[in-house]
Amino acid sequence: MAQQHLETTGAEGCAGEVVAAYLREQATEFLRSLRQHRESGGAAPGGTAEEAADAARALRRSARRISGTLHTFRPLLDAEWSDALRPELAWLSGTLAQEHAYASRLERLLCALHRLSGAHAVPAQTPASAGVPGRVGTAQLPRNENRASGHLTVGAAKAGALLERQLTLARTRAHSTALQALGSSRFHAVADNVAVLASEVPLRTTTADLDALAATAQSRLAEAVAALPLHRAGHPYNAEALVQGLTADTAPPSQDAPWHHVRLLLRLHRYAQEVVPGGPGTGACPADAETEAAAALDRHRDAAEAAAAAAHAARTPRIAPATAYALGVLHADQRHEVEAARFAFQRAWLKETVHTP
Amino acid sequence: MAQQHLETTGAEGCAGEVVAAYLREQATEFLRSLRQHRESGGAAPGGTAEEAADAARALRRSARRISGTLHTFRPLLDAEWSDALRPELAWLSGTLAQEHAYASRLERLLCALHRLSGAHAVPAQTPASAGVPGRVGTAQLPRNENRASGHLTVGAAKAGALLERQLTLARTRAHSTALQALGSSRFHAVADNVAVLASEVPLRTTTADLDALAATAQSRLAEAVAALPLHRAGHPYNAEALVQGLTADTAPPSQDAPWHHVRLLLRLHRYAQEVVPGGPGTGACPADAETEAAAALDRHRDAAEAAAAAAHAARTPRIAPATAYALGVLHADQRHEVEAARFAFQRAWLKETVHTP
Repeated sequence: MAQQHLETTGAEGCAGEVVAAYLREQATEFLRSLRQHRESGGAAPGGTAEEAADAARALRRSARRISGTLHTFRPLLDAEWSDALRPELAWLSGTLAQEHAYASRLERLLCALHRLSGAHAVPAQTPASAGVPGRVGTAQLPRNENRASGHLTVGAAKAGALLERQLTLARTRAHSTALQALGSSRFHAVADNVAVLASEVPLRTTTADLDALAATAQSRLAEAVAALPLHRAGHPYNAEALVQGLTADTAPPSQDAPWHHVRLLLRLHRYAQEVVPGGPGTGACPADAETEAAAALDRHRDAAEAAAAAAHAARTPRIAPATAYALGVLHADQRHEVEAARFAFQRAWLKETVHTP
Repeated sequence: MAQQHLETTGAEGCAGEVVAAYLREQATEFLRSLRQHRESGGAAPGGTAEEAADAARALRRSARRISGTLHTFRPLLDAEWSDALRPELAWLSGTLAQEHAYASRLERLLCALHRLSGAHAVPAQTPASAGVPGRVGTAQLPRNENRASGHLTVGAAKAGALLERQLTLARTRAHSTALQALGSSRFHAVADNVAVLASEVPLRTTTADLDALAATAQSRLAEAVAALPLHRAGHPYNAEALVQGLTADTAPPSQDAPWHHVRLLLRLHRYAQEVVPGGPGTGACPADAETEAAAALDRHRDAAEAAAAAAHAARTPRIAPATAYALGVLHADQRHEVEAARFAFQRAWLKETVHTP
């Protein structure tokens, strides 16, 4: 594979062909997922919700890859054309991601509440069946059956019910927004442009080097990681993630931003590696450690958003103090998940042998 | 030192003498502290509060050592006499400890609230000046100056004020209780018995071996540590300390008990080492690691009690949801301190080379 790659990029212009082949592949996958989503009825009544959700996930997956590739290998492509397409792909994958995000956020919070309230049951629904907004077993949260442990348990149950109400509503809205988006002329314009990619990628004549562009993606990642407070993150229980946790009304806190940024750069790096397998500097790169690092940053993002959702729910007017207390415990629990994810990322990154060129 | 010890315990009866010398020393210290406490006016108006607090601390210190020694080296002593004295010493040191405990618990919780609400100031008073119940700077907690971060900050300030009210009241009561105790006939009986120890320790003729008794204290400790979930504690961010955190109305949770038990056994072991320096099995024992382990268990206890105080405050009737939310965050924060302390203990214990005989 690496051998073939070296031969291909040896000649000028072939760099563009490698990128074009990858973009064609992803564009074809995008169009296939779109067809599949339409055939599944788009999760409309009568359609297969799970198929629609799978199709939407595949659609997002290829949209992210196309967008990332247009960004990393920009000098090889018609700049105006790809600069216009990228924000549209971001809009699309962002819109499609919301429904799933609300569903898995609710699941994460209810699972945490179950753990905190000592119940062993987990929500019946998984995010896999996110196509149909529905009930996610708050019924399994312990209610006020046991007088002795009344106050806190009631708080946990009420907090669970409140979160379920708020996040299910948000999810239902996201579902409608996604369906609307998929029927919009804005979306059809995106789909038309992706169809162009599937047949003929708009390349431009250039001496830009494929390896150098992939290396740039990698060095941007390395720089961003170097700027993270990794030393602190490597000391367990540093209590960093809760600092100022009671200050700002708006979440997520600014301390999360550089980690979210690294998450996106790691993604761009990984897509670049798909285009240029065995690219520069990744020689001895243990792919497992990279996967682990990416998973840690996903968990970081999810926990940060779940913590924000708990804090948001606590600002609902007229809730009982016991409910607010449970939401406070839940918020702090998720912020510690944020801290744990940073620790996990630091560990995975140490295993990583990626070097900037 | 070890050499001298081997010579001393070689002859029968000398074991009793070693213990008697230690007990005389501690009893003399007890009586000296008591005199000092009386001279300081017992923290009554006009007395020097700091001196009284220091004296009370010294009194507790020797009471704990006498009690521990009576327990560990029981076969060397008049059993009936020492069995009667031990619970009285426990009552005394327990009663005297309360005031300081409430003061430092409040300080711990206010410091945590400052950290959580992003303030940099720390309470003006330290537990060192615990003799006089008084104001512990809630005024420094950010109030609703900034509209943008209003809700949560108000909650933190209110939570701080509530904790200050409750724990200052508890501390004032503990102060009165301690003064009453020191004036009671029950206390005078304890002081009389300690005075007996200072002049003539009631030994009994026995073949019991000093080293063997110290070794028993050590093996009890080792057994209790072996029963702890150390493997789990060694994995950072295991989230164990918050499990069922929303279940029980009564704190501290049962999961803390074995750790508290080890804390007491470690203390007994350390006192036994004071009696028999360089005792059996402690050959290469790094004293620093043991001090570190003991400090971790103190922190474990303090954080567990602070978490319980936050949970207790959250059950105050008619508090605002924002206050309850802040108390929930604070509770979870302190439970994570509990988990962090277990991790620290596990680390320190690994360095420890103590082996059971």
